[in-house]
Amino acid sequence: MEHLNQSFTVQYQYNIFFTSALFSPENELLNSFLVNLNPAVTVKKILFIIDEGVANAHPALIKEIQTYFYKYNRTQLVQDILVIPGGEVVKNDTRYFDQVLEAINVHGIDRHSFVAAIGGGAVLDMAGYAATVAHRGIKHIRIPSTVLSQNDSGVGVKNGINYFNKKNFLGTFSPPVAVFNDELFLSTLSDRDWRSGIAEAIKVALIKDAEFFEWLEANATALAARDTEAMNYQIWKCAKLHLEHIRSADPFENGSARPLDFGHWSAHKLEYLTNFEVRHGEAVAMGIALDSVYSNLSGRITADEAQRVINLIQQLGFELTHPLLQVTEGNSPILQGLEEFREHLGGQLTITLLTGIGSGEEIHEMDAEILKQAAEILNNQSVTIQH
Amino acid sequence: MEHLNQSFTVQYQYNIFFTSALFSPENELLNSFLVNLNPAVTVKKILFIIDEGVANAHPALIKEIQTYFYKYNRTQLVQDILVIPGGEVVKNDTRYFDQVLEAINVHGIDRHSFVAAIGGGAVLDMAGYAATVAHRGIKHIRIPSTVLSQNDSGVGVKNGINYFNKKNFLGTFSPPVAVFNDELFLSTLSDRDWRSGIAEAIKVALIKDAEFFEWLEANATALAARDTEAMNYQIWKCAKLHLEHIRSADPFENGSARPLDFGHWSAHKLEYLTNFEVRHGEAVAMGIALDSVYSNLSGRITADEAQRVINLIQQLGFELTHPLLQVTEGNSPILQGLEEFREHLGGQLTITLLTGIGSGEEIHEMDAEILKQAAEILNNQSVTIQH
Ligand SMILES: NC(=O)c1ccc[n+]([C@@H]2O[C@H](COP(=O)([O-])OP(=O)(O)OC[C@H]3O[C@@H](n4cnc5c(N)ncnc54)[C@H](O)[C@@H]3O)[C@@H](O)[C@H]2O)c1
Ligand SMILES: NC(=O)c1ccc[n+]([C@@H]2O[C@H](COP(=O)([O-])OP(=O)(O)OC[C@H]3O[C@@H](n4cnc5c(N)ncnc54)[C@H](O)[C@@H]3O)[C@@H](O)[C@H]2O)c1
Ligand SMILES: [Zn+2]
Ligand SMILES: [Zn+2]
Repeated sequence: MEHLNQSFTVQYQYNIFFTSALFSPENELLNSFLVNLNPAVTVKKILFIIDEGVANAHPALIKEIQTYFYKYNRTQLVQDILVIPGGEVVKNDTRYFDQVLEAINVHGIDRHSFVAAIGGGAVLDMAGYAATVAHRGIKHIRIPSTVLSQNDSGVGVKNGINYFNKKNFLGTFSPPVAVFNDELFLSTLSDRDWRSGIAEAIKVALIKDAEFFEWLEANATALAARDTEAMNYQIWKCAKLHLEHIRSADPFENGSARPLDFGHWSAHKLEYLTNFEVRHGEAVAMGIALDSVYSNLSGRITADEAQRVINLIQQLGFELTHPLLQVTEGNSPILQGLEEFREHLGGQLTITLLTGIGSGEEIHEMDAEILKQAAEILNNQSVTIQH
Repeated sequence: MEHLNQSFTVQYQYNIFFTSALFSPENELLNSFLVNLNPAVTVKKILFIIDEGVANAHPALIKEIQTYFYKYNRTQLVQDILVIPGGEVVKNDTRYFDQVLEAINVHGIDRHSFVAAIGGGAVLDMAGYAATVAHRGIKHIRIPSTVLSQNDSGVGVKNGINYFNKKNFLGTFSPPVAVFNDELFLSTLSDRDWRSGIAEAIKVALIKDAEFFEWLEANATALAARDTEAMNYQIWKCAKLHLEHIRSADPFENGSARPLDFGHWSAHKLEYLTNFEVRHGEAVAMGIALDSVYSNLSGRITADEAQRVINLIQQLGFELTHPLLQVTEGNSPILQGLEEFREHLGGQLTITLLTGIGSGEEIHEMDAEILKQAAEILNNQSVTIQH
């Protein structure tokens, strides 16, 4: 009998809003979003999940949320606000995932209601995953509270948790219905977390936008000194470039090209080897330094260009490299990491290198000898590199 | 700062193939699909999950699969074929979900490899869910082995398991990369399971296709007598109508219109109340009878039309109703079911009724008195209904 063909497209659309004091009674942004998204006859519920790090740093937050929805009562706040640990532990231990499902069940959150998560990338990844599988997908709202989650992880389409000791082994490609970036959350970040997320801006500027790279160079000192205005622009621009990339390429990663993973192959291995003691952004900064020097040593960019990358990374206060990134005799962890990445991609390596400030190319092989040299150069904090 | 907008579309596409003896060494269908989908430099793996009911009824199956991939070795068969119980238990107990994840992990199945499930709707739902969340989505192949899964559940886009004692509490909208309907599996079905799935054909014919309804009337005796040719056409046509509906409407159910749930609101409640002792299709047949008589009593279709529905259901060997579907004093389970369905839809009831053979309309209120009358008429197996 003749085979049947199914074919359809699904449209995805959401906004990323930038605001200050999201839950101030005067700030109508969230309320008008909720009311307009689903102009409905009945009252919709909203369940909040909050990162403990945020709740502790902002002790008035829960009260503010309650006051907000007492005023804007077209959406019914679930009074039982769930506070869960921040950081990787929330993705490692499925107990927290179950807690979110339990709250969704107990409070009768259905596909017409909302789950809103406030937190760093880890809490957003986990809560987003729970929301997107409960009832085959509840509308979820992300309220990122770290630089990394405001400029990168929180504005994208991925959710996930770790399982079998593997990073993001379980997850979904499923966008939020909206993202609210509130600058006030960033004030309570540690210096490390403030800095860390900026690595993603360097990454996306290097492969997509020379002008933005120049802006980062010009504003490195302000960013390092925790200047709010510079930070706000950095987040807005970096989020914009990420969104454009996701849109223009392959949003749910059905192919294997992943240029936005520039600098990430070695970073992932390093995070893992240090048991996440080295932050994601810190590892990415080192990964960018490594692949930039490699790009120079392999003749793709000039020494001056590589030097500019190194200078920017240092001005922002990042370390340039880590002992575990050195290529030593036999099976160095970094060469193992390269091999694992190849396997992960299904046998063929695809890595982005730079061909200039603002442009990259995909390569399918890396030379161990050049890698060794690049790592050594960074280890010596050498400022003179091959011309 | 100006908000950012994200907007993109994702294209979904897959084929439903009809065949006989899928794993016969002469049958190149599956192999050519696998090889053509992903013309790749490297060997891809395929992991099989098999419904125990199928494995027992077809004791040579595993050997046939091994022989098949020994011949067609461009795809690497995971020798460890996972056999799991069939039926609702496999969706109720998360142990089986974990077994599939474990196999995916242990055998290194990545986003370039395949998970293929052979079984009834329950096994396909569970294995599909596991595949679509592992690594944020491994390509999954469905090989349905029941009438219901070949003509309805297996050709659609939904996956899921039960949780917190709730049907499909966890799940995804995520289509397979292909469906292979092999007629040979159906020969070993019990009479109940053979018949049960035909209820979905009655359903979709009634709301979409008068001609197909007439075909079902003309072939009811052959279908009841387990005629293979009639069954094959029924499955092909019913699958086609389901696919068209999914495509034309709202594939991932972002709105709330669900015309393909005709006859299902009371069926779901009945399945649940009888602890799934009444099969899905059996309950749907009763639900269709109820809503058809209701459609007549509320002036939407003629008595003759309602009678034709009743006759067809009876000719196929279905029961017309169940004591638990009667409306009694106070809170009958069926009225409770209606209320729960309203809540499930977020406050506004949406139910499809018939306006003729082959056409339906959505209504937002049901009258308890008419419902009582309709249930009584069916209970008396009355063949004379109101003109
Ligand atoms: N989904 C994606 O596309 C994507 C992309 C990149 C990274 N990620 C994930 O993001 C995670 C890392 O996210 P992260 O860098 O935001 O760190 P994080 O979520 O691990 O949080 C770091 C720490 O900061 C605390 N914190 C959060 N906000 C705070 C605030 N406003 N004030 C004070 N403390 C606060 C947290 O409690 C935690 O202890 C990783 O799990 C990574 O896998 C996801
Ligand atoms: N995903 C969807 O869109 C969707 C739609 C409708 C129903 N469903 C789900 O489908 C499930 C019901 O599926 P079903 O009706 O196919 O029944 P089933 O999967 O429960 O299987 C019924 C029994 O038949 C056995 N079996 C399966 N194939 C056989 C064969 N060829 N020979 C002998 N025995 C065989 C099984 O082992 C099981 O014991 C429910 O869980 C329901 O929720 C899903
Ligand atoms: Zn990153
Ligand atoms: Zn059904």
